Amino acid sequence: MKKIITLGEVMLRLSPPGNSRFAQTDEFHVEFGGSEANVGSALAYWGESVSHVTAFPDHELGKRAAAQLRQNGISTEYVKFLPGRLGVYFLENGALQRSSKIIYDRFDSSFSQYDGSETDWDEEMKSVSWVHWSGISPAISQQSADLTKRILKAARSQNIPVSGDLNYRSNLWQYGKKAHEIMPELMELTTVMIAGARDFSQCLNKDFDSFEEAKTYAFETFKDLKYISKTNRITRSASDNAISGELYTAYEVFSSQNYDVNPIIDRVGTGDAYAAGLIYGLQNLEPQEAIEFALASGVLKHSVPGDILLSSKEEVEEVAAGTSGKIKR
Amino acid sequence: MKKIITLGEVMLRLSPPGNSRFAQTDEFHVEFGGSEANVGSALAYWGESVSHVTAFPDHELGKRAAAQLRQNGISTEYVKFLPGRLGVYFLENGALQRSSKIIYDRFDSSFSQYDGSETDWDEEMKSVSWVHWSGISPAISQQSADLTKRILKAARSQNIPVSGDLNYRSNLWQYGKKAHEIMPELMELTTVMIAGARDFSQCLNKDFDSFEEAKTYAFETFKDLKYISKTNRITRSASDNAISGELYTAYEVFSSQNYDVNPIIDRVGTGDAYAAGLIYGLQNLEPQEAIEFALASGVLKHSVPGDILLSSKEEVEEVAAGTSGKIKR
Amino acid sequence: MKKIITLGEVMLRLSPPGNSRFAQTDEFHVEFGGSEANVGSALAYWGESVSHVTAFPDHELGKRAAAQLRQNGISTEYVKFLPGRLGVYFLENGALQRSSKIIYDRFDSSFSQYDGSETDWDEEMKSVSWVHWSGISPAISQQSADLTKRILKAARSQNIPVSGDLNYRSNLWQYGKKAHEIMPELMELTTVMIAGARDFSQCLNKDFDSFEEAKTYAFETFKDLKYISKTNRITRSASDNAISGELYTAYEVFSSQNYDVNPIIDRVGTGDAYAAGLIYGLQNLEPQEAIEFALASGVLKHSVPGDILLSSKEEVEEVAAGTSGKIKR
Amino acid sequence: MKKIITLGEVMLRLSPPGNSRFAQTDEFHVEFGGSEANVGSALAYWGESVSHVTAFPDHELGKRAAAQLRQNGISTEYVKFLPGRLGVYFLENGALQRSSKIIYDRFDSSFSQYDGSETDWDEEMKSVSWVHWSGISPAISQQSADLTKRILKAARSQNIPVSGDLNYRSNLWQYGKKAHEIMPELMELTTVMIAGARDFSQCLNKDFDSFEEAKTYAFETFKDLKYISKTNRITRSASDNAISGELYTAYEVFSSQNYDVNPIIDRVGTGDAYAAGLIYGLQNLEPQEAIEFALASGVLKHSVPGDILLSSKEEVEEVAAGTSGKIKR
Amino acid sequence: MKKIITLGEVMLRLSPPGNSRFAQTDEFHVEFGGSEANVGSALAYWGESVSHVTAFPDHELGKRAAAQLRQNGISTEYVKFLPGRLGVYFLENGALQRSSKIIYDRFDSSFSQYDGSETDWDEEMKSVSWVHWSGISPAISQQSADLTKRILKAARSQNIPVSGDLNYRSNLWQYGKKAHEIMPELMELTTVMIAGARDFSQCLNKDFDSFEEAKTYAFETFKDLKYISKTNRITRSASDNAISGELYTAYEVFSSQNYDVNPIIDRVGTGDAYAAGLIYGLQNLEPQEAIEFALASGVLKHSVPGDILLSSKEEVEEVAAGTSGKIKR
Amino acid sequence: MKKIITLGEVMLRLSPPGNSRFAQTDEFHVEFGGSEANVGSALAYWGESVSHVTAFPDHELGKRAAAQLRQNGISTEYVKFLPGRLGVYFLENGALQRSSKIIYDRFDSSFSQYDGSETDWDEEMKSVSWVHWSGISPAISQQSADLTKRILKAARSQNIPVSGDLNYRSNLWQYGKKAHEIMPELMELTTVMIAGARDFSQCLNKDFDSFEEAKTYAFETFKDLKYISKTNRITRSASDNAISGELYTAYEVFSSQNYDVNPIIDRVGTGDAYAAGLIYGLQNLEPQEAIEFALASGVLKHSVPGDILLSSKEEVEEVAAGTSGKIKR
Repeated sequence: MKKIITLGEVMLRLSPPGNSRFAQTDEFHVEFGGSEANVGSALAYWGESVSHVTAFPDHELGKRAAAQLRQNGISTEYVKFLPGRLGVYFLENGALQRSSKIIYDRFDSSFSQYDGSETDWDEEMKSVSWVHWSGISPAISQQSADLTKRILKAARSQNIPVSGDLNYRSNLWQYGKKAHEIMPELMELTTVMIAGARDFSQCLNKDFDSFEEAKTYAFETFKDLKYISKTNRITRSASDNAISGELYTAYEVFSSQNYDVNPIIDRVGTGDAYAAGLIYGLQNLEPQEAIEFALASGVLKHSVPGDILLSSKEEVEEVAAGTSGKIKR
Repeated sequence: MKKIITLGEVMLRLSPPGNSRFAQTDEFHVEFGGSEANVGSALAYWGESVSHVTAFPDHELGKRAAAQLRQNGISTEYVKFLPGRLGVYFLENGALQRSSKIIYDRFDSSFSQYDGSETDWDEEMKSVSWVHWSGISPAISQQSADLTKRILKAARSQNIPVSGDLNYRSNLWQYGKKAHEIMPELMELTTVMIAGARDFSQCLNKDFDSFEEAKTYAFETFKDLKYISKTNRITRSASDNAISGELYTAYEVFSSQNYDVNPIIDRVGTGDAYAAGLIYGLQNLEPQEAIEFALASGVLKHSVPGDILLSSKEEVEEVAAGTSGKIKR
Repeated sequence: MKKIITLGEVMLRLSPPGNSRFAQTDEFHVEFGGSEANVGSALAYWGESVSHVTAFPDHELGKRAAAQLRQNGISTEYVKFLPGRLGVYFLENGALQRSSKIIYDRFDSSFSQYDGSETDWDEEMKSVSWVHWSGISPAISQQSADLTKRILKAARSQNIPVSGDLNYRSNLWQYGKKAHEIMPELMELTTVMIAGARDFSQCLNKDFDSFEEAKTYAFETFKDLKYISKTNRITRSASDNAISGELYTAYEVFSSQNYDVNPIIDRVGTGDAYAAGLIYGLQNLEPQEAIEFALASGVLKHSVPGDILLSSKEEVEEVAAGTSGKIKR
Repeated sequence: MKKIITLGEVMLRLSPPGNSRFAQTDEFHVEFGGSEANVGSALAYWGESVSHVTAFPDHELGKRAAAQLRQNGISTEYVKFLPGRLGVYFLENGALQRSSKIIYDRFDSSFSQYDGSETDWDEEMKSVSWVHWSGISPAISQQSADLTKRILKAARSQNIPVSGDLNYRSNLWQYGKKAHEIMPELMELTTVMIAGARDFSQCLNKDFDSFEEAKTYAFETFKDLKYISKTNRITRSASDNAISGELYTAYEVFSSQNYDVNPIIDRVGTGDAYAAGLIYGLQNLEPQEAIEFALASGVLKHSVPGDILLSSKEEVEEVAAGTSGKIKR
Repeated sequence: MKKIITLGEVMLRLSPPGNSRFAQTDEFHVEFGGSEANVGSALAYWGESVSHVTAFPDHELGKRAAAQLRQNGISTEYVKFLPGRLGVYFLENGALQRSSKIIYDRFDSSFSQYDGSETDWDEEMKSVSWVHWSGISPAISQQSADLTKRILKAARSQNIPVSGDLNYRSNLWQYGKKAHEIMPELMELTTVMIAGARDFSQCLNKDFDSFEEAKTYAFETFKDLKYISKTNRITRSASDNAISGELYTAYEVFSSQNYDVNPIIDRVGTGDAYAAGLIYGLQNLEPQEAIEFALASGVLKHSVPGDILLSSKEEVEEVAAGTSGKIKR
Repeated sequence: MKKIITLGEVMLRLSPPGNSRFAQTDEFHVEFGGSEANVGSALAYWGESVSHVTAFPDHELGKRAAAQLRQNGISTEYVKFLPGRLGVYFLENGALQRSSKIIYDRFDSSFSQYDGSETDWDEEMKSVSWVHWSGISPAISQQSADLTKRILKAARSQNIPVSGDLNYRSNLWQYGKKAHEIMPELMELTTVMIAGARDFSQCLNKDFDSFEEAKTYAFETFKDLKYISKTNRITRSASDNAISGELYTAYEVFSSQNYDVNPIIDRVGTGDAYAAGLIYGLQNLEPQEAIEFALASGVLKHSVPGDILLSSKEEVEEVAAGTSGKIKR
């Protein structure tokens, strides 16, 4: 079985128990998460062969992070142990009218200093079936941007599909480059984009009147682009959301059913679960089934604590079929 | 005060905390539960005198299980300590579109090897006012089926009311008998049945076009049968259900109000709480009040973690009266 | 910055984890709360200078209670350490159709024996901008009633605004006085009342046909009274409420928007958060903004475990503006 | 099997986890304990029939306390539910050079108001084989002293052995009586005393130069007295103790082996475990075996968290035989 | 790097927190352990390449067990998912004079039904440098005995070193064979034996007057045997032990230093850590260093909760060098 | 009452529960600690007026850190909220032969960027009775070194005693300066030094043959120096230490008694507790009493989880008097 490569930073996730606030907690639950590794973990849980490219500090917590990837079923053959620190994010889980709150503490991480130049990625790509990246990596440091480009180039030179979650974040991009200076070249190397109108605007430094306009522009501009997908979310409160999604080719659109999710257990990683579902779907299903599988994955993640969808394919399919909810004995 | 006898297996219940999945938990919450003992515990909490008939292994965890029955207010005079293991069930609590999941590990338990032949049940029945059994026991082993028949016969020979929750489970019945080879004789000895159309079909090996048809057949077939009751549940998701119930005599029907329950805290044992409420109601109330009390008991259980309804009669009555919800100081 | 003075008992709050019942818990979560200190804590979190007047026993748990006030940002310059015990309240958190349940164990506390006679409150009032009390203190003991009167008189003699949450509780008032023997004199010294029709009836020993009638009577009777405010709550279940509020002057009414809160995390202290929001609003905002800020404070508290609203002003404002719910990174 | 009666208050025991101090804990572990019920619980765990005489408040926590007695194997037939509060004790577990610390909050408990006058104790004693009391009960209130006398008289009138742990505590005896006004009459009704020199001095208001002198005086004074027993403890630190014990008749002494216990897990209830062992031993063994069994029981309790020795007879016997410590598979 | 193969059952380990007893716990800590996988995990933590041969049930908990192996750094390429149950062991952690207690519930596990016949072990052995087994596997079932023989034969046919921890357990061997009917053939295939006199006696059905005699017999009997090693343990209490060890060739003996371990955190798995240290040592060090490394590994394990030594080589070396104990910053 | 000023960084302390290793924990206990604030907290617990000078990031966790200082009884009037991150240290608690392990993650903290230049420290010193610093602050950054010098100069210009814990740490001093370039000037401004021979060597860049020689040199070199103190620790294992201490003037030496501490609960902060005891002692006691009080403080800290000695003066005095260990009721 050829493997899927995901690349990106994995952080220590520290969160107060239940609905407690930072101001009152005496305890943090310890997990590890990062957008791209979350995608990889969901895919590995479904039996896919997945390797994650990242770097950790060479101390006990760095090793613990790598062990967590292995526990999730991901190969750590591409994990490097380097100087630097372990990125951390503190998550306070919201409820009702109170938003969830994330405090990032990720600068100067070992990952941010890793550019992947020591590896012959062309060689490695021989056993690869898919590559997934996100717009977070190139926003962290020049080295991370270089790493991303290096891997994407190697993949596309062998015609391997590449999915990218553009995921523009304004509080990153602090190393002296702007998104539009870096992202277009990476988008050129991407065959499946997950993005909304704002992501396109920021990454391309261009105003679009609508998602429709952005989408059309993207399909015209990026010649290898096969699919664009996005989710639509209505946030009634931190506990109560509604979501659906769409998958576009240059000429078609496939829309998923709508889901109400209430009360949400953990909102984090729901986009990553959806991305994983999309990758799985595009590799194994028809487009309409793919977007349904993707949304059902995203929906299920709202019920699972932590960054990662820990659900079998059968569970996802039951959600898509609308038959879930009863006790399974 | 004469006592109620319940009989059946009590298992070690192991569940991850909160909404955690098996795949991620480092901790199991420890409880003990079993359908018929759950019924007995609810009744004991209301002040009824209850004795439970079961068997445990003769080690510390078997003693712990018996201690739990005593804590619940149940007499352990009929608890035997035998060779064998303690049945276990692992419960993962669902949420939203994710179903709750139970992994049973109950084969070869001490209970499954206990047939009750050493006791003079005719003698014991002199101080008994009611007997409750379920279709789980005869599905476990020949000995458990024998135990059930032995006790039911003793009860009916002294005209003691017997309630049975038919509760057909396809993943049991693995000892070489089919339900319809065992159940009819036990149903003959039962005056109050809790059952839906599928339970009747499976236990009688007979297709019914409707519950109505099954019910009519049952009243015609089983001469001592006084009441049939069933609940109706709409499962919108693992978090969001609606329930109501009905109580039938051969000629009448009594329907409860409808309840929405959302967000569900613990779905397990809700049917047992309802059965307890029904037994209490049929002993102490008019039929219409009885079905309302039964449903309110079942509804309340959705808010209590664990297998057992730990609620006073006053709380149940307030739910039935629609006056609950405010802080009680 | 002049300071706000709050006065009242602070109790040890002991609650089973999550939704567990008293009957099943092996653990109590430890917090400290009391209506007036809850108000003060919310105000201190917003940057106000707050001193709380109370008394604790002179042992480790009394010191712990004082340390908690300091942690909340409250000055303990007016905290006394006296003989007696620490008041306790046991809270079982309700859910669905099951009400929350409080067992009070507060008699003979150190606070109940403190009358404040050793302090020159006239002198202290020189640095005070607002005083807040509630109807709980005068209901506890004669000394507590005396303490309240002493501080209110000192405040009003220097024309300092005084808010009072009348909060009539029938299970208090056990020291030989009735509410209407004590409360009118304290209401005379109050410029902002938080009260519903029943509070007015009980405190004034007078039947009112409506809140409107009570309100009119109050404005006519109490010459210094500037504002009356009350909340309206619909309790669909312990998990699902709707709330709104109104602020009255003698001639005007300002109504807040309506909020649905579901599923409620912690119902306790929501009225105190609203009172804090009202005090903040009346000191810093226009009346319409004040009642919106007050309600948004109260709404937010439903999402925070414990007695105390631990939310920034920005969070409250976002709720009032209807823009909350999304993850904040 | 005739039953053992124990009588005394059972309190809610609240302790921070592990070695945490009151000043830093956010959590209390919940247990229930009281000297005499601890004795009864150990005996019940060994298969003895035990009934405990006490009273609890008629609320959820009072019921929980009674459920705990049942879980421990004790009959609650003599438990009354009365007005009043549940006594509480807060325990901070010491370590190394730091002493354990107990804060009592037990005044005005339901137990303190119960005098047992509604029961015909002469009738009840027909099925009793032993009665155990301690000096704590008569020190709490006149009613508790009356209750104790009432039961002891009934027991002795039928020549039932009575053991009493004199256990003088200077911080009790606050209801207007001194120990020496109450205790002698109760000692007159006691056949086995657990006491050291100080206990005899305080209870008899008499200076003794040595335990030897006190012991001689006691055997001369109390005509029904058969045995006196005491333990000797060297407290090197809160973690490191050494203990041994002696059992005296008027003419003989039986000494146990010495034990080092380090590191102590829970020091509380070790004297109660020893008392239980003594009662068991005097009923079933020769005196030398009895004091060895008693000490081994006390030693084992140092390894068990909570108030109660939860150990089988076999475990106690292994400790006495010096063969414990290896993993038992 | 060639890999080490370990083979054996991995069970779900459930233990009450801290020093709590089965009789009082409401919670089990969840771990996974088994003698041979514990050995493999320690080796993997030191950077060795390790594959474990075992089988799990094909459900969420079986997958969780495999994920735990991966987290420990072990390859799961040889893990099978089969019908059957997951073996469980319940561990109560002893302290002071109270022994630790294990309740096994391992019959009918998936592992017990796996005989390894589907794999070409000769082929697999090409990339193997060492094989480790224990006397537990052949004691479980005929299939497990067959599996062991199959792998050992394949290993020895390519002259790969094989270590075996004889570990005779009288409560196993319940499938109709006695140890001496099965073990000699496996010992024939073993080059390093960990065993004491009793192990040799039971496995060979032969009385030895001393370990010396057993050892001599073994070297004479088993022609491929290179080393025998054993540990000496003095069990002063469950908290306080002393240990040392010896490594024998046919003509030499290498003795380790003595260690006192007090207070023991977790006694389970200490022999497995020592076995891992021995395997590492015999592959990489001189015999005297090897036995010191092995003992230091075993000693360190007493400080780590769970079945598995999670310690770096540097930590082990520091213990062997006597330089550990200070805070490492 | 004049106040004590302490200055230094306060970090988030994250530690696995009990004896768990980083490699296995799913939870971190949350505390806040830093050498100098630990000293201040102990002093505040004894009733001293203490203000701590530090800086935190302006987010929820920074506020939480400040709240913790207030809870500990420390005034936060000198706490600044600045850009930057919150320093973190991860602590794994050792046991037996396994060392405790700290991973620091403190670079680029808000504190490291604070130089105190905005405050008129001469003005502030008017209400100060003592200043305490440690060698950690000047080792962090030039700004922290400047802050320290600024405050020490202001203190000494008004003849306020200054204690300094030299505490040389080789893994700090990474901002381009060496200890001997910065420390001498600060030592010049210090009247009480806590230091061993190695501290003097490193800070003065000078080899000393013995502590005696270093001490003599220090008293000759630093004209304002009144006292030097040091502790002597024998580390038998991470669980078992022995400690004593000495206090030197230029001509005298005062030695404390020796203490064995086993089993150690928390080794961290024991030096800070001793420093606090020394400051308290030198302000309030004779030199011999002072060193006894200091050591007893340090000894007690070994029994308290967390960074901070939470013990009353009475407890410290009991340890010094050798009367501790028994249960205090």
